[in-house]
Amino acid sequence: MCNVTKDNITEAFIRYMGPDTDPRLREVMTSLVRHLHAFAREVSLTHDEWQQGIGFLEQCGAISDAERHEFVLLSDVLGLSSLVDMLHNRPEGTSSSVLGPFHISVAPPLAVGGDLRGDFDAPVLLIEGVVKDPEGNPIPGATLDIWQTAPNGLYSSQDPEQDTYSFHGLQTVGADGYYGFTTVRPVEYQVPTDGPIGAFFAATGRHAWRPSHLHFIAEAEGFRPLVTEVFAADDPYLDQDTVFGVREDLVMRYQAMPAGSFPEAGFALSGKVAEEYLRVAFDLTLVPA
Amino acid sequence: MCNVTKDNITEAFIRYMGPDTDPRLREVMTSLVRHLHAFAREVSLTHDEWQQGIGFLEQCGAISDAERHEFVLLSDVLGLSSLVDMLHNRPEGTSSSVLGPFHISVAPPLAVGGDLRGDFDAPVLLIEGVVKDPEGNPIPGATLDIWQTAPNGLYSSQDPEQDTYSFHGLQTVGADGYYGFTTVRPVEYQVPTDGPIGAFFAATGRHAWRPSHLHFIAEAEGFRPLVTEVFAADDPYLDQDTVFGVREDLVMRYQAMPAGSFPEAGFALSGKVAEEYLRVAFDLTLVPA
Repeated sequence: MCNVTKDNITEAFIRYMGPDTDPRLREVMTSLVRHLHAFAREVSLTHDEWQQGIGFLEQCGAISDAERHEFVLLSDVLGLSSLVDMLHNRPEGTSSSVLGPFHISVAPPLAVGGDLRGDFDAPVLLIEGVVKDPEGNPIPGATLDIWQTAPNGLYSSQDPEQDTYSFHGLQTVGADGYYGFTTVRPVEYQVPTDGPIGAFFAATGRHAWRPSHLHFIAEAEGFRPLVTEVFAADDPYLDQDTVFGVREDLVMRYQAMPAGSFPEAGFALSGKVAEEYLRVAFDLTLVPA
Repeated sequence: MCNVTKDNITEAFIRYMGPDTDPRLREVMTSLVRHLHAFAREVSLTHDEWQQGIGFLEQCGAISDAERHEFVLLSDVLGLSSLVDMLHNRPEGTSSSVLGPFHISVAPPLAVGGDLRGDFDAPVLLIEGVVKDPEGNPIPGATLDIWQTAPNGLYSSQDPEQDTYSFHGLQTVGADGYYGFTTVRPVEYQVPTDGPIGAFFAATGRHAWRPSHLHFIAEAEGFRPLVTEVFAADDPYLDQDTVFGVREDLVMRYQAMPAGSFPEAGFALSGKVAEEYLRVAFDLTLVPA
């Protein structure tokens, strides 16, 4: 290697890895560096452009902390996060979608039929469905970790006006696999644009919007955990989610239900909703582990 | 794009870029994301591995500051920095090599024949040559920005014992293109291993050593600036530079010169070096801009 050249440097990198390197790490690093070098060769990357790229990564690092994850956002807006999700999707189960940065580790329990809407002044949305296996059998005891934006477009962790657990809940289904709760319609929002990703959007003529969605993490013993989101069919940003999260089977319809038709029992809001409301039916299919 | 899939997400990314995107930025981002996605598909990158990668970048960000450039080091140890250099090398000129993080913006003037060794207790090394164009004509007025390690293996910015400008100098050549100065032999050293790059070395069985070298930035009006390093033919790390900087034409021989043969005039140390000394002859060829 006394004469590293642009033609042998990739093989030089591969040869530098020692014999005790974990085989999977070797495989990943070999592929990563082959593609990184191929990219630089393909565009004949200049020193100035390299410098801009290094500066961009340094800016991502500088704005990041325990709350702000700019590298996750970078991966999201480049489509990498969604691609990694989809690579491991199983066609017999519900599609997964991006976790995002607003999940809370320990959400408060939400009984079946419970309410997340609280005092927020927005029409009631009833969401219900069954957690089932690929054969359609219900999965008793499955848990659903649920979170979403408030009507102002903010998650609780972004919004000093909201309680920490506002629009967060953990529901455990019974023997019939049925889940159901009331909430308000989530709204579209923009990912943070005050850092380097905002500059990237500006330079490439992209917007920062995500279509409205509701997050679920579904878990059950013996099944693969499912991290997913469900979207609204009439959302203006459905076909241009800036983090590429929309999958066909995750698009749900908001059904306008007539006044007086709210279920008479089984919901915390039963007997309290006289007006029209919205309803979404969405089953979740988990794949055995 | 209501149904992003693992097969169409790369094209979705490309289509998201707006019509006013700078054409070169579009070209670079298209290639970068194609390769990034191809890498993830090729190794079927898992969510856990993605998480480790994000964590690695966050650690690089956390240890970086105005003095510490971990993303540059990452690029160096992956061979990207050297590759970018080599892509723009011109065969008729001296090869370029990595700049590294120890350059100082304004080095003090060093007269032709001047001395960088000062009071350091190590054998004298005399380096001389001509700055010339590809036809062999000298380039009058060319400048050489020179820096290197002290005998303890540290650059001045790493070493509280050294003056800021220790082993840094800026020499301007005369009409004959000749440069020459005295110094001490630079020594091999390790790149920083106390951050995530150190963990990467450990996981892949790599060392952190660079062979000894002397840095030059050569500049002259009408010519492309040349950032380069010169190496010693007998260095134990010559064929395993951890940042891939060695090029065949940058390897120089340290010639042992007999006692009493030091030039009688023209050097700051003329008349002061009675013992044996080392000599290196190294011409620098600049390519017209």
